[in-house]
Amino acid sequence: MNKTPERGEIPILSIVGKSNTGKTTLIERLIPELVRRGWRVATIKHNRHGFQMDHEGKDSWRHKNAGARMTVVASPQKVALVADAPRDYTMAELRDLYVRDVDLVLAEGFKKNPHPKIEVFRPEVHSERLCGPDDHCVAVVSESPLPPAVPRFGPDDIPALCDFIERTILRGAAP
Amino acid sequence: MNKTPERGEIPILSIVGKSNTGKTTLIERLIPELVRRGWRVATIKHNRHGFQMDHEGKDSWRHKNAGARMTVVASPQKVALVADAPRDYTMAELRDLYVRDVDLVLAEGFKKNPHPKIEVFRPEVHSERLCGPDDHCVAVVSESPLPPAVPRFGPDDIPALCDFIERTILRGAAP
Repeated sequence: MNKTPERGEIPILSIVGKSNTGKTTLIERLIPELVRRGWRVATIKHNRHGFQMDHEGKDSWRHKNAGARMTVVASPQKVALVADAPRDYTMAELRDLYVRDVDLVLAEGFKKNPHPKIEVFRPEVHSERLCGPDDHCVAVVSESPLPPAVPRFGPDDIPALCDFIERTILRGAAP
Repeated sequence: MNKTPERGEIPILSIVGKSNTGKTTLIERLIPELVRRGWRVATIKHNRHGFQMDHEGKDSWRHKNAGARMTVVASPQKVALVADAPRDYTMAELRDLYVRDVDLVLAEGFKKNPHPKIEVFRPEVHSERLCGPDDHCVAVVSESPLPPAVPRFGPDDIPALCDFIERTILRGAAP
């Protein structure tokens, strides 16, 4: 039992689904249950269209705006960083560059990747699922019955879904 | 000549000074000149009293607020990260954890550290200097004449100060 996997080996579980299916809400509900069980969780979110993190006028923004490739801001309790990306990093690259001292990475917003996926599916919003048979989908979260090709969990079955994540993604590790 | 020093060996230059002496402004002026000369610069800023980086309601904030130890947000051009810090990291620890692919780290807001320092001094704001003889102060930026114990540069002598930084901090490296 190895509490901290070697760097580069922290497992990634991707939460996918079409727009407005509740991906962020699912992640928000999974994290506290995983943390309660003793797991250390990081998240990676991909925004194709960019994002705003630092605030205009703040010192960190002034450093970055003056041409720094990377600005780190630290307090005794927290660290934040804004960096130029030379290209669109993969999830595994982002994990290897920045994530450490956690047991699991939950990723949101990466459509194509080789990591196991949980798809959030709401047929009343989108009639077709996002994942095809080659997309490494290991479970579906949906209120609707589905063909039993992969395990299905209801949106409120958080403990059962965490059991499943422990069994299939974190297997062997101890929190 | 090694363009990229080994990790952990990226030189740190600390910009120090009492409050309202113009530390951030100096950093804002140094960076473009260093970048123009081909150097890749990162900054590290310490805020003893904390800071706000992510925005309430945003997905990254929701992930972090749900209990993630670390949230990475990525776009094709930019990466940002907010992480819990188990303790008040030193500059060298922050550099080794997060900074890569740059030639120089300019740090602001760390009072006590073993790295070379440039002190911004405005006697009309504070009559006493911050750095004592054991504080590794390698230069002073001030409009006022000073005892010639260390080199002095005027606030507008940015090219001369960059020459000095290249000579004393980046010595031997080529941009």
